Amino acid sequence: MVEAVLGATLEVFAERGYGGLSIEEVASRAGVNKTTVYRRWPTKVALLDAALRDLKAHDEPPPDTGNVREDLFVTLRAKADQMMNPRGRSVRRAVLAGESEPELRSVVLQLRKEYPVVPRIVLERAVSRGELPESTDYDLVTTTLVGSLLSNTLWRERVEDDLLRRLIELVISGASTMTR
Amino acid sequence: MVEAVLGATLEVFAERGYGGLSIEEVASRAGVNKTTVYRRWPTKVALLDAALRDLKAHDEPPPDTGNVREDLFVTLRAKADQMMNPRGRSVRRAVLAGESEPELRSVVLQLRKEYPVVPRIVLERAVSRGELPESTDYDLVTTTLVGSLLSNTLWRERVEDDLLRRLIELVISGASTMTR
Repeated sequence: MVEAVLGATLEVFAERGYGGLSIEEVASRAGVNKTTVYRRWPTKVALLDAALRDLKAHDEPPPDTGNVREDLFVTLRAKADQMMNPRGRSVRRAVLAGESEPELRSVVLQLRKEYPVVPRIVLERAVSRGELPESTDYDLVTTTLVGSLLSNTLWRERVEDDLLRRLIELVISGASTMTR
Repeated sequence: MVEAVLGATLEVFAERGYGGLSIEEVASRAGVNKTTVYRRWPTKVALLDAALRDLKAHDEPPPDTGNVREDLFVTLRAKADQMMNPRGRSVRRAVLAGESEPELRSVVLQLRKEYPVVPRIVLERAVSRGELPESTDYDLVTTTLVGSLLSNTLWRERVEDDLLRRLIELVISGASTMTR
């Protein structure tokens, strides 16, 4: 039941956005009684939070190849593929379109904190191996990699491996040499 | 008449997205006859193209301070402010939400090419002053700066000067030292 409801939640959210998400519609698509949904997820924000968390829970564990460029390549390749498949695109579109909805906003900010696209451990290991300086600004490195990926996936059909490798080279070279 | 129509176009687009944009509604808000609009802009894609171009035409000319970091700071500060004011936010939201509309997509791609957020001349001057190597990948530098800005403006109320300076330092340090 849980999988069916969470799957239906993402489907309705992707099609109609946060404003158009309703527990009734989710229950009907999942083929369950709406009181069953309400009992477990009393509000639509709780339901969407659970559905988005469920997506993250299926992510691969952080890579640990022994090389920061390679770890980042594996991470960004998986993220780019996820962002560009049809479901990923439509969920992302619904998230971006709902930027001004305070409830959605707080769910997204919390999930970004708990599940950063570039797992912190990947950067911490790079620092411990001496590939990045102790002073590395993890947030800046992460938002820059992810932002560039976002801006490159938005209007393209595909993101080439070569582009990902050059992006990683740019950011890692910069993080290794920047003075503060 | 032109200003009123283009202003109304952005307003309707920002509120209702590309799917909800109609020449009738634009004419009515601008207080002109719809045949007047049709005569000059026969399709809604032509109308939106004109309205978005009009926005770009009001951008400041590229800065030329003699220092690439300073030029980029001026450019990104202006862009961040534009992206975060209420009209900028709602236009951006409508653009992102319409990512899968082929007509809107082709307008956006064309405008991105004609009006890159980081004007090419800013990077060319940096190369000619020796601040960046000849081999600099202009597209990569631009999409990385803009993507990071996008990812930082989406969920924040404000983008601090210090964040912009650190982002510029990261990308310029990286572009100066990356080996390909």
